[in-house]
Parts: sequence; C-alpha cells; structure tokens
Amino acid sequence: MSASYDPDNIFAKILRGEIPSHRVYEDEHTVAFMDVMPQSTGHALVVPKAASRNLLDADPAVLAQILPVVQKVAIAAKAAFKSDGVLIIQYNEPAAGQTVFHLHFHVVPRFEGQPMRKHTGTMENPEVLTANAEALRQALRGR
Amino acid sequence: MSASYDPDNIFAKILRGEIPSHRVYEDEHTVAFMDVMPQSTGHALVVPKAASRNLLDADPAVLAQILPVVQKVAIAAKAAFKSDGVLIIQYNEPAAGQTVFHLHFHVVPRFEGQPMRKHTGTMENPEVLTANAEALRQALRGR
Repeated sequence: MSASYDPDNIFAKILRGEIPSHRVYEDEHTVAFMDVMPQSTGHALVVPKAASRNLLDADPAVLAQILPVVQKVAIAAKAAFKSDGVLIIQYNEPAAGQTVFHLHFHVVPRFEGQPMRKHTGTMENPEVLTANAEALRQALRGR
Repeated sequence: MSASYDPDNIFAKILRGEIPSHRVYEDEHTVAFMDVMPQSTGHALVVPKAASRNLLDADPAVLAQILPVVQKVAIAAKAAFKSDGVLIIQYNEPAAGQTVFHLHFHVVPRFEGQPMRKHTGTMENPEVLTANAEALRQALRGR
C-alpha cells in the first residue's frame, strides 16, 4: 500500500481554487465545503490546507488545529439544519472507505428516523447545495 | 434534547477505575481502551479524561489534544492488526448513533473484503480482547 500524496487529487484542486466548491468556512489552516454527494441534508467536509493523504501521515500540529474547526462546523450544521445529531467520519485508505486521498472529515447531520443515504455517485442538485451552504455559513457566523 | 453530562456514564466509570477495561494507552488528558463489542478486530476507543457529553459541548483545547492521540492509536492499530485501513467514527447524540454520553472516538481497523460487524450487543471473548489489547500496547510502544 502506497501512502503517497497526489497533489492533483480533487480536494487539492478545490483548495487551489482550480475547481469550484460550495465553501462555507476558511481560516489560515482549514477549509470547509459542502459534500456534492451528501449522505444527508447539510453534509459538509472539513479539510486542512496542509497536504496529507489521510490521518495516518498527517502532521499532529495540523490535527490539533482541525478538530476545533470540525466542532464549529458540527455545531453550526446542527443549528442550521435543525438536526437531531451529527456524525463525524474520517476514512483512512480504500479498505476503510477513503476515495479522495487528502485528509478530510465528514460532518453529517443526522435526523431521527432518517437513514443515511448511500454514496450512490449521484450529484446533489446545485441549487440545494447553494441553499444549504448559505444556511451553514450563516450559522457559522452565529446568525 | 438535553445536552447534560451524566457523571455515572460507563466511560466515566472506566476513567475512574470503577469498572475494568482493556486499557492500551494513557496520558495526562486521554485514555484509550478496547471496545468490548468490537465492529472489527482491534476496535479501540479514545476518550478524553475531561467530561463532555460529545463533540458538541467539548472544550476546544481538549479536542486539540485528543486528535493526535487518535492518530497514534490508528497508526498502531494498523500495524498491530495488519489492517488495510482504519475508520474513525465519532457519534453525537442518539440520532447519530451515540449510546455512551462521554465524548469518544472509535478507531476501527478495516480489512479488504471484510464488512464491519454490526453492533449486536454481544460482548467479545475476554481472551480475544486481552490478546488484542496487548498487541495494540506493543505497537503503541513502537515494538
């Protein structure tokens, strides 16, 4: 198993602005944007700017910075989408479900009685993503 | 939804040593022990000593400390159990799957072609837990 980092992975391209994303948060070290194949309403991703394939090869200093941001996004998502809970998932290597090889944390709002959607490979309606991104941005601003 | 913390939750009791656990790691702020209902071989839990119900009410300083420990345990688990990947899961509130209301991170080694076991409520054989805890301790010591 190679643990190499491909600088042309899709999240690296999003971080460089080479492809668009529904960005909801950015600070010096971290970016958050909507998952385009959400497993529930408001599913977002929190991604460090620093390059690492996943948790296993990440700089511990990057990890110390990112989890408080995951918390901010989780709290905001719960408020924005009036979810009953929030699931945090982080996949390392294909056997664990990783498909994009730049460290990222899934923030998945969960609702009582609503199973998570499967990763079908179907893109969400862009208007829905735009609206959910704006709701999440407003919650992150404390509005 | 109450976001209260019950100091008699099972992980609080484990942290106080009132009930036993297969402890694999401890530092000033954090403890790790084996999940007694593992969803795969070597499934461990990383738990801060500080009281919080989950990620949503945790002190960001605690979060900054804990993720580098989750990384250590994940790297050691991958080595100890020769897993192909590692899944990190953190549940917030019952709608997201939380059943013990003290913040914790699941570190689940994943193996190609082996689906995760469901949470059946069946306890793992204590001898298996003892052996896996020892393998994980040794990997954490870098042996």
